[in-house]
Amino acid sequence: MADYQAPLRDMRFVMYEVFNADKRWGQWPATQELVDRETADAFLEEGAKLAARTVAPLNREGDEEGCHWSEEGVTTPKGYKAAYQLYSEAGLTGVAGNPEYGGMGMPKALSAQFDEMFSSASLAFTLYPNLTSGAALAIDAHACEALKSLYLPKLYSGEWAAAMCLTESHSGTDLGIIKTRAQDNGDGSYSITGTKIFITAGEHDLTENIIHLVLAKLPDAPAGPKGISMFLVPKVNVNKDGSLADRNQVQCGSLEHKMGIKASATCVINYDGAKGYLVGEVNKGLNAMFTMMNYERLFVGIQGLGTSEMSYQSALEYALDRVQGRSATGPQQPEKAADPIIVHGDVRRMLLNMKALNEGGRAFSTYVATLLDTAKFSPDETERKQASEQVGLLTPVVKAFLTDIGLESCVSGQQVFGGHGYIREWGQEQLVRDVRIAQIYEGTNGIQALDLLGRKVVMNGGASFKQFAATIRRFIAEGESDEFSAPLEQALAKLETLTNELLSQAANDPNVVNASCNDYLHAFSYVSYAWMWAMMAREAQARLSAAAQEDDFYQAKMITARYFYKRLLPRMEGLLISAASGTETVFELPAEQF
Amino acid sequence: MADYQAPLRDMRFVMYEVFNADKRWGQWPATQELVDRETADAFLEEGAKLAARTVAPLNREGDEEGCHWSEEGVTTPKGYKAAYQLYSEAGLTGVAGNPEYGGMGMPKALSAQFDEMFSSASLAFTLYPNLTSGAALAIDAHACEALKSLYLPKLYSGEWAAAMCLTESHSGTDLGIIKTRAQDNGDGSYSITGTKIFITAGEHDLTENIIHLVLAKLPDAPAGPKGISMFLVPKVNVNKDGSLADRNQVQCGSLEHKMGIKASATCVINYDGAKGYLVGEVNKGLNAMFTMMNYERLFVGIQGLGTSEMSYQSALEYALDRVQGRSATGPQQPEKAADPIIVHGDVRRMLLNMKALNEGGRAFSTYVATLLDTAKFSPDETERKQASEQVGLLTPVVKAFLTDIGLESCVSGQQVFGGHGYIREWGQEQLVRDVRIAQIYEGTNGIQALDLLGRKVVMNGGASFKQFAATIRRFIAEGESDEFSAPLEQALAKLETLTNELLSQAANDPNVVNASCNDYLHAFSYVSYAWMWAMMAREAQARLSAAAQEDDFYQAKMITARYFYKRLLPRMEGLLISAASGTETVFELPAEQF
Repeated sequence: MADYQAPLRDMRFVMYEVFNADKRWGQWPATQELVDRETADAFLEEGAKLAARTVAPLNREGDEEGCHWSEEGVTTPKGYKAAYQLYSEAGLTGVAGNPEYGGMGMPKALSAQFDEMFSSASLAFTLYPNLTSGAALAIDAHACEALKSLYLPKLYSGEWAAAMCLTESHSGTDLGIIKTRAQDNGDGSYSITGTKIFITAGEHDLTENIIHLVLAKLPDAPAGPKGISMFLVPKVNVNKDGSLADRNQVQCGSLEHKMGIKASATCVINYDGAKGYLVGEVNKGLNAMFTMMNYERLFVGIQGLGTSEMSYQSALEYALDRVQGRSATGPQQPEKAADPIIVHGDVRRMLLNMKALNEGGRAFSTYVATLLDTAKFSPDETERKQASEQVGLLTPVVKAFLTDIGLESCVSGQQVFGGHGYIREWGQEQLVRDVRIAQIYEGTNGIQALDLLGRKVVMNGGASFKQFAATIRRFIAEGESDEFSAPLEQALAKLETLTNELLSQAANDPNVVNASCNDYLHAFSYVSYAWMWAMMAREAQARLSAAAQEDDFYQAKMITARYFYKRLLPRMEGLLISAASGTETVFELPAEQF
Repeated sequence: MADYQAPLRDMRFVMYEVFNADKRWGQWPATQELVDRETADAFLEEGAKLAARTVAPLNREGDEEGCHWSEEGVTTPKGYKAAYQLYSEAGLTGVAGNPEYGGMGMPKALSAQFDEMFSSASLAFTLYPNLTSGAALAIDAHACEALKSLYLPKLYSGEWAAAMCLTESHSGTDLGIIKTRAQDNGDGSYSITGTKIFITAGEHDLTENIIHLVLAKLPDAPAGPKGISMFLVPKVNVNKDGSLADRNQVQCGSLEHKMGIKASATCVINYDGAKGYLVGEVNKGLNAMFTMMNYERLFVGIQGLGTSEMSYQSALEYALDRVQGRSATGPQQPEKAADPIIVHGDVRRMLLNMKALNEGGRAFSTYVATLLDTAKFSPDETERKQASEQVGLLTPVVKAFLTDIGLESCVSGQQVFGGHGYIREWGQEQLVRDVRIAQIYEGTNGIQALDLLGRKVVMNGGASFKQFAATIRRFIAEGESDEFSAPLEQALAKLETLTNELLSQAANDPNVVNASCNDYLHAFSYVSYAWMWAMMAREAQARLSAAAQEDDFYQAKMITARYFYKRLLPRMEGLLISAASGTETVFELPAEQF
C-alpha cells in the first residue's frame, strides 16, 4: 500500500480551472464572506495532511481488528477515537454546516474534496463523521428551532455523533413496509419501539452521545411510504441546557460481520419505548430523508472514487517498482533482471483505465457538487431551480456509476499486484472489499438506475434530460472545435436517440424502465464522463503554452482525455443496443424456469 | 446460501446432446471399455451427492476458521480431513488418471463436471485434490518409469497429495528469474535449496505425504526460462517399496493471509537441501509444466463457473423468496406486503446475466474438455493435432473469460441480496472473495490474453484462428438457418475483421499485442459464447416437440439464448473499437506522468 497523497493539484484543477467554483463563491452573498480560493486551499492542505498522516495509517489495522460489541456498547479499533478527535477539531464534521448553529457554511464543491480524501484514507473511518454531517443536514432542513439549537452545534463540533436508521430486516429498498412504531407521549415527545438493522455508526465509543434519526410509523399512519415519520432519538437523553440526562432506551443488539469496512460499526439497534422527537411533519419522513439524499448519494459516489484513487496510487507505485518480464520493444532497464511492469501494455491499460475514470469521476462529482451549491446559494431563483433539477437527474448517476467504477478500478488495482494483490498485508484486496458496499447501501445501484430512468427521465417526459443535453451542446458551441467536439456530439446524439426510444417504449410497456435502466445509466455515465473529459481537455489545452512549468500536468490531461475517448467511451456502444432491446428477453422466462 | 444442487440436467445436456461426448467415448479404443453414458451418469450422481452433502456444508465454516500454522505443520479446518477421505474413496482424485498406475482413465469432458461441482461446493476444498491431479498429470507425462510407479498410484488413490511450486517472491509471471537451486548429488537425486511462495496445498494435514513439483535451476543452467528444471520433492522421503522413510528438508515457513479461499493453505515453503528427483529433461522444466497447463487452466476457468453457479443458485432462491416492492405491471402477490423481487426487471437482468453466462460457460468449458479428449484419445493423428491446436487457442480464453465472468456473476449474485449480500453469514460475499483468486493464479488473466493474441494468433499468422472460424462457419452451414444464424455469422465476421486488423498492426508495432490483448480476448469470448448458445439452441429446438415432458427445459434454453444475443453479445461492440484503436493512447503517457 502506497502512502496516500491527496491529489490536491487535480482537485484544484477541477474546482477552479474547470468549474470556476471560486468565482461563484465570490458572487454568492452566503459564501463571499466565508470562503475564497486562499481559504479553501489552506483548508484543503490541512485536510490532506490529516487524511494522509492520521487517518490512512489506521485503515489496515482497523480492518484486522474490527469493532467490538459488549452489553455496555461498541468499541472502535485502536486509534479511532484519537483520530476522530483530530478530525472534529479540524472542523471537518461541520464544514458544510449551517453557520447559524456553528457550522462553517462551506460549499459542497469544497467539502466534496474532503469526502474523497477521507474515503481514500479509510472508508470505514470516514463513515462516522459523515453520517453525522448527513443527519445534521436533515435536522437543519426539517427540525424545529428548539431541536436545531439544541443538537446542531454539538453535531457540527463533533462532540456528538449521529446515525440514520431506516432499514429493518424485512424492509430495505421498500421502506413503506417498516414496522417500527411511534406513540405520541402527549408531552411533545414520542415513544419509539422497533428494531433497525444495518445501522452504520449506530453505536460506538467515539462520542458521548449518538443522535439517531429513526423512521417509524404512528398508529393511525396510512399504509406504505406516505405513512412514515422521522424522529430524533438520542442515545442519551438531553436536558434543555444541552447537558446529558439519563440513558434512553436505545440498545445495540449486535454487530454485523461484513465483507469489508470492518472498522465501521454496522449495528442492529433496538428501540424499546425510546424517547424521540418528531422531525418535520407527521407522515412526511421520507420527504425529509430525500432532502439529504442527494448529498448522501453524492458522498457515496465519492466513496467509490476515493477508494479507487487509493487503489490507483498503490498500483502505480507497485507497477513502477516491480520488475517482471521485458518490454515488447526491448529491455528498458537492461542492467536489471527485468523491466518494471509499467512497460507492459496491459498493465498500462489497467492503470490508464483507473486514471481516466478517477479523474473523470472527480470532475463529475465536483460538477454535481457545484450544482448543489448553485441550488443552495444562488440568489437567482431560475438558476437555483435549474440546478436543482440537474442535481436530481445526475445524483443517481454519480452514486451508481462512481461506485460501479470504484469496484472495477479497485479490482484493476488489485490485478496489477498479481498474487500479492490477493494477500491481505498489501492492502489492495481490502479496498475491493470496502468499496463493494458503496454499490449496495444508500439505495442499491439498481434503485439508482430506476430513479434515473423512471423518475428523472420518463416521469417528466425527458425534460431534465433535454436540459442536460442542451448544456453539453452549449459547451460544444461555445468553444473552438477540437479533437473531442465531434466525438462528444456523436456520443450525445446516440444517448438522445436511446432516451427517445426508451421514452417511447415506456409509454406502452411498464416493464421497460426496470429492464433497461441499468444499461441506460451506464450509457448516460460514459457520455457524462466524455463531457467532463472534453471540458478538462479544453482547459488543459488553453493552459499548455501559458504555464510551461506545468506542461506535464496539462499534457497528461490531454493524453488521458484521448485515452478515455479511444478506449473507454466505446463501451457505450453495447449498452445502447442492449438498453433498447425491449423487455421480452427479460420477462419471457417464467420464474419457475430460472 | 442455498443448498447446492449440481446442475446435472444441464451437464448431461452439454455433454451428450450438444457435444455427443458419449458417442466419441464409444469410438475411441482407450475409452470404449472404460466409460459409457450409464457409467458416467452414475458417477455424476455420486459426485453430485458428495459435493452437495459432504463438501458444500464445510465451505462457510472453513472460511471463518481458516488454516492453522505451527512449527509441526499446517492443520486444515474442522471436517476437511474426513471430507478429503470420502473424496478420495470415491475415486475422484484419480478420475482422469492413467489406468496403468491406478487412475480411472475417465475423459476430461466428464471430469470437468466434477471440477465444476466441487468448485461450487467449496473452491478452497477442491484445490487440495485438484493440485494432486494436476501434479500427477505432469509426473505421468514426464517422469521416468521408476518415479511413476512409485508415486502415481498413491496420488491417484488420494493417499498422498501434491503441490506445484513455481512462484518466488521476486518471480511470478517471469519464471526465468527464479533463484531456487538444484545440485546433483551424483546418486540419481538432487539437492534443492530455495524458497517458494503462494504454494497452494504446499503443507496440510490431509495426507501423510505431500509430493512437491519444484522448479529450480542447476548450477550451469542457461539464464532465463530455458534454464529451468522440474524436480519431484517429497515432504517425507519414500523408500523403494513405497513406504515412508525420514522427513525431507521441506518446511512450511508460514501461511499467507488472503482475501478468500481461506481454508486452502497457501504456503511459503523452504527447501533446505531437500532431496529431489528430476522430472523430464534437464532445463526442460517449463515444457513439463506446459503439458499440464492446458488442463490446469481449464480447471481454473471452471472454478469461475462453479463459484458463479453457486452464487446464481443462492441469488435465485433469495429472489424468489424475498418480497420487496411491487411489479411494474401491478401486484403479483396482492395478499403479501410486497412481491418477490424476481418480478423486477433489473433483478431479472442480474439473474439472466448469470444464467446465460453460466450455461454458456458450461458449454464452452465442456467443449474445450472434449477437444482435450480428442487430442488425447483420438486414433486419428490429424484430428488429434487439430484438436490440440484448438485447445491451445481456446485455453487462455476459457481460463480468463470464465474467471472474469465468474467475478462479475458473483458480484451480481451478491447484489441481488442487497445489504444482506454484504453480510458474511449469507455466504454470497465469500464467493466474491473466493472467485477473485482465479483471475490471478495459474497465469494472470493479462497473461492469458497475451498468450491468446501473441502466441496463439499473431505468432502463427492467425492459422489457429482461421480453423476456429471455419469450424463455426461449418456449424452454421450444416444446420437449417434459424434466428441465431445471421447474428452469429455477423459477430464472427466482426471478430475476423478485428483479428486481421491486429495481425496487420502487429507486423509494424511490437506493442499492439500487449495493449490490445485484453479487449481482444473478451471480444473473442463473446463470439465463442454466441456459438455455444447457437449450438445449444439448435439442439433444444430440435427436441422441443419430441420431448414434451422436458419442454420447460428446452424452452428455457431458447429464451436464454435469445437473452444472450440481445443483451450480452452487444458488449463486444465496444471491445472491437477499443481493441483496434492502436497503441498510441496506451503508450503515449511517460511513466513519470501517471
